[in-house]
Amino acid sequence: MRIGILGSGRMGAKLGTIWARAGHDVLFSYSRSPAKLRRLGNSGSPAQAAANAAAVLLAVHWSRVDDVLSQAGDLSGKTIVSCSLPMNADDTELVVAHTSSGAEELARKIPAAHIVSAFSTVPSEVLLAVFAARRRKNRPNVVYCGDEAKSKRVVARLIRDAGFDPLDCGPLRIARYIEPFTMLVGQLAYERPGGPELAYRFLRS
Amino acid sequence: MRIGILGSGRMGAKLGTIWARAGHDVLFSYSRSPAKLRRLGNSGSPAQAAANAAAVLLAVHWSRVDDVLSQAGDLSGKTIVSCSLPMNADDTELVVAHTSSGAEELARKIPAAHIVSAFSTVPSEVLLAVFAARRRKNRPNVVYCGDEAKSKRVVARLIRDAGFDPLDCGPLRIARYIEPFTMLVGQLAYERPGGPELAYRFLRS
Repeated sequence: MRIGILGSGRMGAKLGTIWARAGHDVLFSYSRSPAKLRRLGNSGSPAQAAANAAAVLLAVHWSRVDDVLSQAGDLSGKTIVSCSLPMNADDTELVVAHTSSGAEELARKIPAAHIVSAFSTVPSEVLLAVFAARRRKNRPNVVYCGDEAKSKRVVARLIRDAGFDPLDCGPLRIARYIEPFTMLVGQLAYERPGGPELAYRFLRS
Repeated sequence: MRIGILGSGRMGAKLGTIWARAGHDVLFSYSRSPAKLRRLGNSGSPAQAAANAAAVLLAVHWSRVDDVLSQAGDLSGKTIVSCSLPMNADDTELVVAHTSSGAEELARKIPAAHIVSAFSTVPSEVLLAVFAARRRKNRPNVVYCGDEAKSKRVVARLIRDAGFDPLDCGPLRIARYIEPFTMLVGQLAYERPGGPELAYRFLRS
């Protein structure tokens, strides 16, 4: 699968690297460091990353969403998997919550694209360990939600290819619950003992 | 430990029954059905349930909180473990969220009590199965938060005695993330395939 990465920071660089190792054709874009971008592998502009991609990962800070979208060209009909959480500039609070979500705001910005919210709920620090352990039983989950069935199937495959077990939470509005859940995971990963290599699994007893 | 149950509906009846089986001295109160209350075991008024209790479980619908508190007597200095989610009358939406939480609103109603938020994140339907399987390794978690260390230790013990592994998420304001997480669990339990016997565990890889 051809995957375009919009935002090659910690999440984008790691997920793209993992998908490339899983056999996908990944094109990285939009990093503060051109040298880092070159080191990651195939790289280009946001428009090049999005062109012909079967899935586009949006992994920029919320404050950069409008800028990267303005450089990404026409995203109509494309599957956009977003892990961009709607955080304020100092990353302490959600700026969209309860009556809407970052995922729904994103869908309003690019209504012709198909948004799937995924991967915000797992810290970047755990990604390589989960991918390395992908042969185990009882993989950790990644919750996801979206309104378009075909795009959700694409994203479920990408979740699986990263070593996680995809858990479909329903329509895009469920991001109103998933995004605060991301804040809870962040609290546990970064403010509580045990460190950021944290994942989660829902259990059926 | 003497435990008073304020609200003997699905959650309160099950948790109280489990704690009684675990050896605690449980007094049930505040059910719509007096016959059900008698069937559960020791029962009485909310004031009787709260008197001399080392921990009080608040498990009423949000719309009943003021009423049950008005009947519970002086709760100063008491450990209140609350699983009452701030839902509207038809249980479709949180009425407090993002800039506050039900747990924080409760703390404002009874400032001399020590509020610990716990158990909202596990459906009542899973409680007996988790308790029955309490000898297993890798118990499911219950996340909890609060501002008073001693009360949090009491609640951690009650979580453990119910067969779960307590996970301390920090101060009471973290209920702003835990309560939407409860909504996510509810979405998975009641609106998605697999049924309501759902629990969760955070994983360190």
